[in-house]
Amino acid sequence: MASANLTVKNALLVTCDAHHRVVENAAVVVRDGRFAWIGPSGEAPEHGEVIDAGGAILMPGLINMHAHCGDSLFRGLVEDKPLEAWLQTVWKAEAALLGDPQMCRLGAELGIAELVRGGVTSVMDMFWHEEAGFAAARAAGIRWAGGGIFFDGPGMDGRGPEARLARARALFDAGHEFCGVLPHGTYTVGPDSLSAALALSRERGGFFCTHAAETRAEQETVSARYGKSVIRHLDDLGALGPDVVLAHCVHLDAEEIALLAESGTHVALNPMSNLKLASGFAPVPEMQAAGVNLTLGTDGPISGNDMDMFLAMRLTATLHKATSGDAAAVGAREVLHMATLNGARALGAEDRLGSVEVGKEADFLLLDLRAPHAAPLFDPVGHIVYSASKADVRDVFVAGRAVLRGGAVQGLDVAALMARAQALVPQIRASLEEE
Amino acid sequence: MASANLTVKNALLVTCDAHHRVVENAAVVVRDGRFAWIGPSGEAPEHGEVIDAGGAILMPGLINMHAHCGDSLFRGLVEDKPLEAWLQTVWKAEAALLGDPQMCRLGAELGIAELVRGGVTSVMDMFWHEEAGFAAARAAGIRWAGGGIFFDGPGMDGRGPEARLARARALFDAGHEFCGVLPHGTYTVGPDSLSAALALSRERGGFFCTHAAETRAEQETVSARYGKSVIRHLDDLGALGPDVVLAHCVHLDAEEIALLAESGTHVALNPMSNLKLASGFAPVPEMQAAGVNLTLGTDGPISGNDMDMFLAMRLTATLHKATSGDAAAVGAREVLHMATLNGARALGAEDRLGSVEVGKEADFLLLDLRAPHAAPLFDPVGHIVYSASKADVRDVFVAGRAVLRGGAVQGLDVAALMARAQALVPQIRASLEEE
Repeated sequence: MASANLTVKNALLVTCDAHHRVVENAAVVVRDGRFAWIGPSGEAPEHGEVIDAGGAILMPGLINMHAHCGDSLFRGLVEDKPLEAWLQTVWKAEAALLGDPQMCRLGAELGIAELVRGGVTSVMDMFWHEEAGFAAARAAGIRWAGGGIFFDGPGMDGRGPEARLARARALFDAGHEFCGVLPHGTYTVGPDSLSAALALSRERGGFFCTHAAETRAEQETVSARYGKSVIRHLDDLGALGPDVVLAHCVHLDAEEIALLAESGTHVALNPMSNLKLASGFAPVPEMQAAGVNLTLGTDGPISGNDMDMFLAMRLTATLHKATSGDAAAVGAREVLHMATLNGARALGAEDRLGSVEVGKEADFLLLDLRAPHAAPLFDPVGHIVYSASKADVRDVFVAGRAVLRGGAVQGLDVAALMARAQALVPQIRASLEEE
Repeated sequence: MASANLTVKNALLVTCDAHHRVVENAAVVVRDGRFAWIGPSGEAPEHGEVIDAGGAILMPGLINMHAHCGDSLFRGLVEDKPLEAWLQTVWKAEAALLGDPQMCRLGAELGIAELVRGGVTSVMDMFWHEEAGFAAARAAGIRWAGGGIFFDGPGMDGRGPEARLARARALFDAGHEFCGVLPHGTYTVGPDSLSAALALSRERGGFFCTHAAETRAEQETVSARYGKSVIRHLDDLGALGPDVVLAHCVHLDAEEIALLAESGTHVALNPMSNLKLASGFAPVPEMQAAGVNLTLGTDGPISGNDMDMFLAMRLTATLHKATSGDAAAVGAREVLHMATLNGARALGAEDRLGSVEVGKEADFLLLDLRAPHAAPLFDPVGHIVYSASKADVRDVFVAGRAVLRGGAVQGLDVAALMARAQALVPQIRASLEEE
């Protein structure tokens, strides 16, 4: 990834460091893609391009820890249907398109355009034709945590178990910044494949990410098949630990929460998806109390319709107030960390991502404060979590390189991507008519 | 209100009529502030200014049935505190400013700027110094449903019971388009004042709006004082009926839901406020099944931080899927009606507002489809409810008169309002230090 030099002045700096430091009228200087100096705007040793933030908030780029960008192609295809009927339609539509890697590339680029527009600088993504996602992220200039998909049965790419393992190995060989293995789930991937994926990932120093404890039906399937819950099944396979990211974790008991905390397993919450698909409410206050590292995700746009990390923050900070009856249940500061520093920790990159601190890589965004919902401003952290929206994101930088300027995505032709996706609608509709 | 003549072409028309009709490539012609013709874009008998929607969605203006615009001045003042501590702070800050009608006017204008930016054309608002709200709405050009506030004790405007009644009468005399009485709640207004307010409103053909069944604490207070629940207490006072709008209705039993349905009482849901203040989840599927006329509100920005009707729609369509475990629990079409036609019904104006139909007043908005979250588009109604955001609102018209053009609020100086609100922050902070 290209590095860059620049100076941003007149910013309201929300560092998201361990102490939640906020600095008014701040400047940051970026040298070779890293924050080299942070201090009062008037004292900045200017370097490279000088950008006047005009009082905007400067904060770390958001880290979306669970997405399926490729599912952007099917956004809004099925609404208000029970999960079973929803799945039937979704899989039929996916099967019609996703055999073609170019379709996965198109979906990934459309998804990344949306992520960049909403302030995301790193994303963990699970999707077919894994190399398409890496290529799309490279074109757009954002960080991509991907890797070999594991799935029993042919899936959308028609690969068998050996081919999947070989593909996963090849992805590690390619030397991507963040690479791991992504078995779909314990109900769709058997213990042998899970173990093989895990062994490969540990051998190569990668991550292990899977869907876990999302729905009651999944829990019932896994319990019937293995005589234990999803989390206990993963634990028995050795698949908990600081290299593991579990998406969802809606249905957990206290012992399972303790297992996650003790093992250092990371959880990616997906509140909008869990609402829309009627999965339920993750036990966030309980996981917080136990010390689980909580991160935020959006799931794919076929579940929650968009990939809005600001909405994910706002929901995470408010839903559990209502479910617990305690308006202090989950706080804005903790939630902002979930979307930044905790995500960096889950990526194994807390030393170089997730906050605005000297020495870290310059992944950051400027958040405009000119919309009426930004006045008055008592507390910028409260504003980010409870009032700001993705449309307020004005500029986004990854390692100091602009990926969004003035609301315009830099590395992708958004209008063309949208037109290509829209042109697929008749084909997708037709696929649903077939027997 | 000034009327206007214009033609909008090349729109994706979402009428929100009783049949949820959608018309592609449509045009509407507005004469003297009303929709005079609706049909295919190529056949429009052009009249007045011609606007090319460029494929944007044209839909009715949103009707926000519960707001406290004046509370915009305190947005984000207190976060993550239990309700009691929250209230203590809020009341202290309000008391420091709201004796001054000019402060209420400033708050109302800031709130209205936000509402207009987010596509709202009519709002029911409850706030001190009632005339300030009407004046602000007149300046901005939106429809305002307000009226006499009733509150035992001095409140923020220092009036006694007789002065309140006289003020309420004077507001009716002023001939506002929508006028009613707005007693704060059954726990803050005694039966005599409630009855006096109700009698006045019925005599003058107005509406009766109050907070009802929002929190458990409120229910306990009212039960202890009157030996019955909030809804039964209102019923015994005769304060249910088609002229009554109850805000919140979170805590209801089946018999109370039946009372609301049978009496034709309207309910204004405020999902974000109910989440953030830990009030809970309104029994929306149950009220729907019983036939209660459900409308949407945002509450004031001190509870939910903003007044975003798109967020209110999205939450209403998704929260109850998760609470019920049924992904079909509340549908996008029903929710879009809550934000439009049902609101018009609650205002007693279903014959002239709430949908895009020939003969109705031309309150409408254009919703941009150029952001990545708008592609692909399978169903415009699903898009509006599950994916669109308030930032997509490009133009808003009330009776054919532009109140927002290209994202710019027409009747108010938004930057100046924001600066004036921000300038109050030190004074508000100081007020919290006082004993």
